[in-house]
Amino acid sequence: MLVIMKNDATEEQVQRVIAEIKNMGYRGVPMPGAIRTAICILGNKGAVEESRLLPLDGVKELMSVTKPYKLVSRETHPQDTIITIENVKIGGSNKPVIMAGPCAIENEKQALTTAEIVKQYGATVFRGGAFKPRTSPYSFQGMGIDGLKILKKVHDETGLLTITEATDHVNLDDVEKYADIIQIGARNMQNYSLLKRAGEAKKPILLKRGFAATIDELLMSAEYIMAGGNHRVILCERGIRTFSDNVRNTLDISAILSIKEVSHLPVVVDPSHAAGRRDYVIPLSRAAIAVGADGLLIEVHHDPVHALSDGMQSLFPEQFAKLMEEIKYIYK
Amino acid sequence: MLVIMKNDATEEQVQRVIAEIKNMGYRGVPMPGAIRTAICILGNKGAVEESRLLPLDGVKELMSVTKPYKLVSRETHPQDTIITIENVKIGGSNKPVIMAGPCAIENEKQALTTAEIVKQYGATVFRGGAFKPRTSPYSFQGMGIDGLKILKKVHDETGLLTITEATDHVNLDDVEKYADIIQIGARNMQNYSLLKRAGEAKKPILLKRGFAATIDELLMSAEYIMAGGNHRVILCERGIRTFSDNVRNTLDISAILSIKEVSHLPVVVDPSHAAGRRDYVIPLSRAAIAVGADGLLIEVHHDPVHALSDGMQSLFPEQFAKLMEEIKYIYK
Amino acid sequence: MLVIMKNDATEEQVQRVIAEIKNMGYRGVPMPGAIRTAICILGNKGAVEESRLLPLDGVKELMSVTKPYKLVSRETHPQDTIITIENVKIGGSNKPVIMAGPCAIENEKQALTTAEIVKQYGATVFRGGAFKPRTSPYSFQGMGIDGLKILKKVHDETGLLTITEATDHVNLDDVEKYADIIQIGARNMQNYSLLKRAGEAKKPILLKRGFAATIDELLMSAEYIMAGGNHRVILCERGIRTFSDNVRNTLDISAILSIKEVSHLPVVVDPSHAAGRRDYVIPLSRAAIAVGADGLLIEVHHDPVHALSDGMQSLFPEQFAKLMEEIKYIYK
Amino acid sequence: MLVIMKNDATEEQVQRVIAEIKNMGYRGVPMPGAIRTAICILGNKGAVEESRLLPLDGVKELMSVTKPYKLVSRETHPQDTIITIENVKIGGSNKPVIMAGPCAIENEKQALTTAEIVKQYGATVFRGGAFKPRTSPYSFQGMGIDGLKILKKVHDETGLLTITEATDHVNLDDVEKYADIIQIGARNMQNYSLLKRAGEAKKPILLKRGFAATIDELLMSAEYIMAGGNHRVILCERGIRTFSDNVRNTLDISAILSIKEVSHLPVVVDPSHAAGRRDYVIPLSRAAIAVGADGLLIEVHHDPVHALSDGMQSLFPEQFAKLMEEIKYIYK
Repeated sequence: MLVIMKNDATEEQVQRVIAEIKNMGYRGVPMPGAIRTAICILGNKGAVEESRLLPLDGVKELMSVTKPYKLVSRETHPQDTIITIENVKIGGSNKPVIMAGPCAIENEKQALTTAEIVKQYGATVFRGGAFKPRTSPYSFQGMGIDGLKILKKVHDETGLLTITEATDHVNLDDVEKYADIIQIGARNMQNYSLLKRAGEAKKPILLKRGFAATIDELLMSAEYIMAGGNHRVILCERGIRTFSDNVRNTLDISAILSIKEVSHLPVVVDPSHAAGRRDYVIPLSRAAIAVGADGLLIEVHHDPVHALSDGMQSLFPEQFAKLMEEIKYIYK
Repeated sequence: MLVIMKNDATEEQVQRVIAEIKNMGYRGVPMPGAIRTAICILGNKGAVEESRLLPLDGVKELMSVTKPYKLVSRETHPQDTIITIENVKIGGSNKPVIMAGPCAIENEKQALTTAEIVKQYGATVFRGGAFKPRTSPYSFQGMGIDGLKILKKVHDETGLLTITEATDHVNLDDVEKYADIIQIGARNMQNYSLLKRAGEAKKPILLKRGFAATIDELLMSAEYIMAGGNHRVILCERGIRTFSDNVRNTLDISAILSIKEVSHLPVVVDPSHAAGRRDYVIPLSRAAIAVGADGLLIEVHHDPVHALSDGMQSLFPEQFAKLMEEIKYIYK
Repeated sequence: MLVIMKNDATEEQVQRVIAEIKNMGYRGVPMPGAIRTAICILGNKGAVEESRLLPLDGVKELMSVTKPYKLVSRETHPQDTIITIENVKIGGSNKPVIMAGPCAIENEKQALTTAEIVKQYGATVFRGGAFKPRTSPYSFQGMGIDGLKILKKVHDETGLLTITEATDHVNLDDVEKYADIIQIGARNMQNYSLLKRAGEAKKPILLKRGFAATIDELLMSAEYIMAGGNHRVILCERGIRTFSDNVRNTLDISAILSIKEVSHLPVVVDPSHAAGRRDYVIPLSRAAIAVGADGLLIEVHHDPVHALSDGMQSLFPEQFAKLMEEIKYIYK
Repeated sequence: MLVIMKNDATEEQVQRVIAEIKNMGYRGVPMPGAIRTAICILGNKGAVEESRLLPLDGVKELMSVTKPYKLVSRETHPQDTIITIENVKIGGSNKPVIMAGPCAIENEKQALTTAEIVKQYGATVFRGGAFKPRTSPYSFQGMGIDGLKILKKVHDETGLLTITEATDHVNLDDVEKYADIIQIGARNMQNYSLLKRAGEAKKPILLKRGFAATIDELLMSAEYIMAGGNHRVILCERGIRTFSDNVRNTLDISAILSIKEVSHLPVVVDPSHAAGRRDYVIPLSRAAIAVGADGLLIEVHHDPVHALSDGMQSLFPEQFAKLMEEIKYIYK
């Protein structure tokens, strides 16, 4: 931590700050510069209480040198984390994991039909929502626990792993019971109460980046889960909100690089929600794999035209086949 | 709803769309234009299933003419909603309501001391967090239920109403029991599970705008609460996330105008969290009142330098006195 | 400037960085911290060549402590700059200057009629575009030099100062000849060639903030003008581009505070272009004055319904009268 | 164009709007809906004067159905435009064109050395700035005309095409004389005076997207150039400004798809300026090619550590070799 003094700060003001730093149990070392003085705080282990220093006369601002996260950081865990679930490995140098399926579970036939299709073309995880966070209270909210039971059946009949979203404490209990991976959605990325519960779960968590969350905020949310004891966290980039209005959200492809630089956790990409339209899903998937994502989360429906939700962005089976073919080529 | 046809769409494609609209139970009327044809859908009461029309040959895009919210809309409720809690009235032509107090309840003395100060200068609602949504799992998370009991004591001893945040189903039960207004924070604005619970609450809800939420999304979240049966909703603008890095969040002052244009609900402003620094709170409060806000949510601490959280943005008592003086002048 | 070393940087790497800093003619002082070492660079007068340090082994990043601007900075010129043009004073504790008039000069009658109206209600500067930067090449591009001549006539007949936009070197020559204040528009804020020419002008410059420019970038553009020798620069906040879609641009009211904190230059606000609709102009003007703007730039038209451009956001005469009345009240 | 009436609009108000549309020379057809009436305007060839309709009683808003651009639109020119310069073809199904070289021309040796390197690995266009738009007036502003002469020498000695930026009318004359492709930079994307001059140029234009420009705005700027008579325009995505702070600009990879959907012009990507750091350039280049870009604009320096500008984001020669190898693989 660095205390930047105003350029007209007096020597007494500098000494007063150093004294207060000492009171806080640290050491303050002045760094006289050409224009102004900065004071370096040494000896602190965690966050410094900024509010004790900022009000002091002559103080201009405080600059932080270290990041607030620990467990998610590559500095504390240099190797890539590899998450193993049954025979599927996510992260490290493993080939990209494809999680595919409909936006929402609508009935057993739809789920099993789509599951067989995505399995046939190489997906190893089946996605399908049972508890849907919808913008409108009047929209279809998902099948709930009945959807979870169908998900379990998909797993038992096809051998595919399953992933589905939990939106509160109550349904997280159920998701943990029936599914293989628990998804925390973008809108709940800073629902700390839910993150704490996810930290106690025995299943891996896929944590989606909020559409206006910085990388640091995403990592802090993952830190909540890891601090709770659950170290199996997969991060997911799904597009951010920008001024650009040509697609629903702007896929932040460089986020994959930034996350991998500072964290050891695997990162997958959801191009379906970023684009909001199916014809963009294949090229964005190619880009995600080209840049180094550890997997993809793709909406596929055996009959998208009649899907109950997100039909616009769900791939037709033959499009999914094409996607799998193309990314195989890009992934060396 | 309007179906925009591609400019090379054939007459047959137009007729095919009209036939499908008829299948859906509505009427499609073609509007031949200079460059292309648009088809107007008549007779629909709610949302049109876009996925049945968009895949048809020759269709370029669908344009929606009406908004998805109802209960929050001024079209269904032209008069301003006025929320009355004991002797305090919020909204309409009532004078701005000032909700003030510390970021977090730290102990009984701090709460009562600050409450007496804000009451003295004209606040009628006391704010203070008991369940704090903190970015870091390692930060102070609030006093919990003990904080709520202190809040109740503040109400009983000072007569001030109280407001505090609920972050999940469990603590919303408690907040409903001890406080007068239940706050849903910006990070939980699209926590639909929590919004549904808030819709069943017997106390008014103050719903903060998520820092990346559009006005429509804020209103849809309020619609969740109202659809659940709780019609006493106060909206709160607290700054949005933009590229601009000079303050923590950009206070979106015109949002107040936009919300009041389309909704009948009262709107208050939280300049403390938008600015993140105390010296901006007074001028931004003046601006909020000048533009027509129904109230302010202000962080005040009897001793900000030693506050456990958000000390940087909490006003000193004498600053709060000055703020109350200045806004009185601006509010005619 | 601070060099942040990686947390596994070796002592040799630290010494290598210190040696390179010495080669550059400065002094490097190591600051060993709990987790990693930072090295403070002392003795540099201007910018440090980052590219000589960043590639060195063990270096994580460089952090800048000082800002790159000088002449615009309050640190080099603590008092508010007051710009005097004939009998009008802008900045400091002078009362807000109102610049009002139509988007574009359309003909002599329109200009003189509107000028008399805005003068009557208290404006001291008449605005009107002669060279219009329009998004579409097919839109009305302004009257050009004939418009400037009308502007001159407005000045001579009414005594109002005049302001109009210049968009390139050629028309800046003309604007300098005919008008009293030269406007550089938001889209040209980083047109450095034009800024350099503005730096040689003998008339004051009103520099609009680009709709995606940070405060620092705005100040760097003002620095270009001042570095060229023209110290009479007025800054103008006119709304920024954000995800929020309820108005054309989000008026960044706190920018006024941020600019005044670091710069001595006067700041005016253009609510007309921010809002893009006339019914928001009055409340946003109140907010701008309430927060401390040194003036307003307002679009007024004697007959907005028939305006050739921006009619939607131009005030009717009676609305302008109301605006002037209300801000007089807010400005103490 | 569609006029949306308020939901309490009377039949008389609807008729009044239809009468005014008739006065304007068009035809207005009412579309009574469940909640409100919309009126479709037929017969207009260009933009409708919104200001004549919006002020009428009962009018809620106007919705535009068609886009304002023509010449850039795929609707008027369905085939991909292919730009041929000497033996290089850009666009259509031609393989991606690589434009590479230093940020700024520093001297003849640097330019020729780097040009030989990029040619060796497969680049066909040499980039290098002579007129640099720098944020600070105190930074190196480029070699000017001497830089252009070096560029010409590079062309003559290596056979590489050359591209360099023009920033005003005066230096555009020179760039047109010495270089093969004229670049208009992001900051000048809406410098309409410069765009008009570019429209008269005899050389192709590479137009960079402003960092806060929508796709429509980029296309309208290209429309300016084409409307001036120069139909050889290459568009360039170079990252947009968002809240995300992990890289300098967020590369908007889906913009390539959106542009190609509505326009026939070729699109290249500049990952160097988007990322601002060299280690991101290779993966982002892979993504750009994977998504379908027609080319790349890459900063390469034979000795980046000693570059006068942008050294941080310039590739080392061996990195450029690696990039060329990898994208060859991705481009089928």
